Amino acid sequence: MPTLSVFVDVPLARKLEGSLLKTYKRDNFPNKAFLAYRVCMTNEGQPWVSLVVCKTRLHVAQDPSLNYEYLPTMGMRSFIQASLELLFGKHSQAIVENRVGGVHTVGDSGAVQIGVQFLKAWHKDAQVVYIISSQKEMHGLIFQDMGFTVYEYCIWDPKRLCTDSKMFLDVVQQIPHGCILVIGNIVDCKLTQSQWAKLMFTMKSKQIFLFFDIPCQGLSTGDLEEDTRILQYFVSQGFEFFCSQSLSRSFGIYDEGVGLLVVVALSSQHLLCVLSQLMNLAQALWLNPPTTGARIVTSILCNPALQAEWKQNLQEVVENIMLIKEKVKEKLRLLGTPGSWDHITEQSGTHGYLGLNFQQVEYLVKKKHIYIPQNGRVNFSCINANNIDYITQSINEAVLVTKGSE
Amino acid sequence: MPTLSVFVDVPLARKLEGSLLKTYKRDNFPNKAFLAYRVCMTNEGQPWVSLVVCKTRLHVAQDPSLNYEYLPTMGMRSFIQASLELLFGKHSQAIVENRVGGVHTVGDSGAVQIGVQFLKAWHKDAQVVYIISSQKEMHGLIFQDMGFTVYEYCIWDPKRLCTDSKMFLDVVQQIPHGCILVIGNIVDCKLTQSQWAKLMFTMKSKQIFLFFDIPCQGLSTGDLEEDTRILQYFVSQGFEFFCSQSLSRSFGIYDEGVGLLVVVALSSQHLLCVLSQLMNLAQALWLNPPTTGARIVTSILCNPALQAEWKQNLQEVVENIMLIKEKVKEKLRLLGTPGSWDHITEQSGTHGYLGLNFQQVEYLVKKKHIYIPQNGRVNFSCINANNIDYITQSINEAVLVTKGSE
Repeated sequence: MPTLSVFVDVPLARKLEGSLLKTYKRDNFPNKAFLAYRVCMTNEGQPWVSLVVCKTRLHVAQDPSLNYEYLPTMGMRSFIQASLELLFGKHSQAIVENRVGGVHTVGDSGAVQIGVQFLKAWHKDAQVVYIISSQKEMHGLIFQDMGFTVYEYCIWDPKRLCTDSKMFLDVVQQIPHGCILVIGNIVDCKLTQSQWAKLMFTMKSKQIFLFFDIPCQGLSTGDLEEDTRILQYFVSQGFEFFCSQSLSRSFGIYDEGVGLLVVVALSSQHLLCVLSQLMNLAQALWLNPPTTGARIVTSILCNPALQAEWKQNLQEVVENIMLIKEKVKEKLRLLGTPGSWDHITEQSGTHGYLGLNFQQVEYLVKKKHIYIPQNGRVNFSCINANNIDYITQSINEAVLVTKGSE
Repeated sequence: MPTLSVFVDVPLARKLEGSLLKTYKRDNFPNKAFLAYRVCMTNEGQPWVSLVVCKTRLHVAQDPSLNYEYLPTMGMRSFIQASLELLFGKHSQAIVENRVGGVHTVGDSGAVQIGVQFLKAWHKDAQVVYIISSQKEMHGLIFQDMGFTVYEYCIWDPKRLCTDSKMFLDVVQQIPHGCILVIGNIVDCKLTQSQWAKLMFTMKSKQIFLFFDIPCQGLSTGDLEEDTRILQYFVSQGFEFFCSQSLSRSFGIYDEGVGLLVVVALSSQHLLCVLSQLMNLAQALWLNPPTTGARIVTSILCNPALQAEWKQNLQEVVENIMLIKEKVKEKLRLLGTPGSWDHITEQSGTHGYLGLNFQQVEYLVKKKHIYIPQNGRVNFSCINANNIDYITQSINEAVLVTKGSE
């Protein structure tokens, strides 16, 4: 009985991500470099793992007191509590008031997925989403697939080579009433106190719903508290918001991606209702989140000695990234590369703009086998002693070759 | 600036599951019993974990050769391969022909979630879903939330106290052309060869899309191959289908719930297209699946000695369940409980119908503190030496007390 396939009309999906990485992997050029990894890399070119994670992983596997039952759909209670305290501070008033909570989520997309599903169902007035460009590819599509109209905004000024807080203020002024604003790398928004006050006033009066993304707390400045200070300021000013808190990168447990969808509400009653709806969504998505990642994170956060060791690890990583940036700048200076390169060290965290234009990026990718996203935002931890000379010389060449074309 | 909560209209979600368990937990009656756990329980009343899992877990945590990078969105390749071979047999012709594949999924709902999302997008003619009643609560709501019209069917005949294959044939005859049929506990469908042939002919001519659920291969008959023989028959007969394959219960890694959405297509080209679309969906759902569960399963399945040990564990568990059922039947016989109780030992697997009517179930729950789902389908592994006397005496009492009321 010959049958026509039920899948006959299913086309091959366009690749959303990974084509740059795929091209890189296929490339046989000996000096090729990939500067677009999502995660923090070591000097040896391996994904960074906090040393304390390795021993905790072993400890967790050996612990005879653990059971292997299903977690409740909401997730591991102690993990949620420890993660919230990490985000908002141990003595956060909002935690005491029981108006912040979270759902244990899976992978690096789970928190955004569940948050977007909630907004679709329960915040029906919001049809439009403004999303920071760095988050567009990863999270913008989730909103888009759910029927939201998604616009991208950028706070990097490619002419002046700096993060421009005025651009952020303008975005908030211009976006429509009642829309959703997705804010990533908030540490880079260096506004003054009065600018923040003005911004918050506009946000409140326009009833803009904020969706923060904290993908790697501690890896921006090396200081866990500093990295979320502004988030705490929003809480203290009576904002309600969602926040996708990912723990994978901060601990180097990429293979056990865990996180939270964090909910900040005005009252514990509202929080309870929102969490109960999120739980329904989680039940349909995965029913029970996996435990290993959450157990590792919780073991470290709840043990002062392990936590101190982890913080120390984070600081070393961030210092190392700063050192790489200094070296890149210094090497470009010694090569006499035209232009100022201060913006490299002025940006915090693993990722930052090289400050190259489209032609220069294309030159690096096509001619020099250095793989960089089109917007020129690279992961500086991918640069190390083995490739820094080739990379800086290539940048120099790209700038010189394309000099006349601007 | 006082603000009205954006969450003001969000109601408390109704609890979908767990209310029976909640009532049980709150109950202070010393002899209370809960017979509705999803997982296989030990004689000590703990969730069963295959012994080989414990040492593999430790081995995985100690393995210095493992890296902790993100898995690709599709999941762990070796895990997918090993799981497919477990389901279809190592020498499956369909695997050789490269027309079966799978996406590594999260938790006990992930595979169904991603499959339903795909069907919504790419099998638009199918609006109606017929789902086996045992799966209705867990998976029916996922279809429902996605806009499908969901009907429940049952192949248990409460009068004759047996699984009735004719009921299954009738269901397939009656359901509309082009609908989706969700089939669980296929081992219980004891059709003859010619009945299967007739059934398949009807399914094909009505273009019914099959969505199998294999939640605990090996725990039905104790024989891994026997548990999926009919699935393999469907493959050999040229069916295309989806199958939610969960590995959590077969290994006792409930806390690291992993599985696959298995796709069987008519050709490798179709398979490739379907998998690429599923990958897009997985990217939005969790981006990268967690590894621990998959690593444990793969380590066991790819090591003949460990696999043999695991198979031995499964057999012991199933023999133990059969022993419990025999004892329940024998005790009811000794008590002189009216009726035949052969149906208890005629059903395979952890879960089965006690064969009690609504009043009898209600009597057990309300008067005897024995917590049983309304349909009287219990998890026999929850019965052990400590509670079997109380449970059988209570069943006897329930049958006697409600005797006149039918």
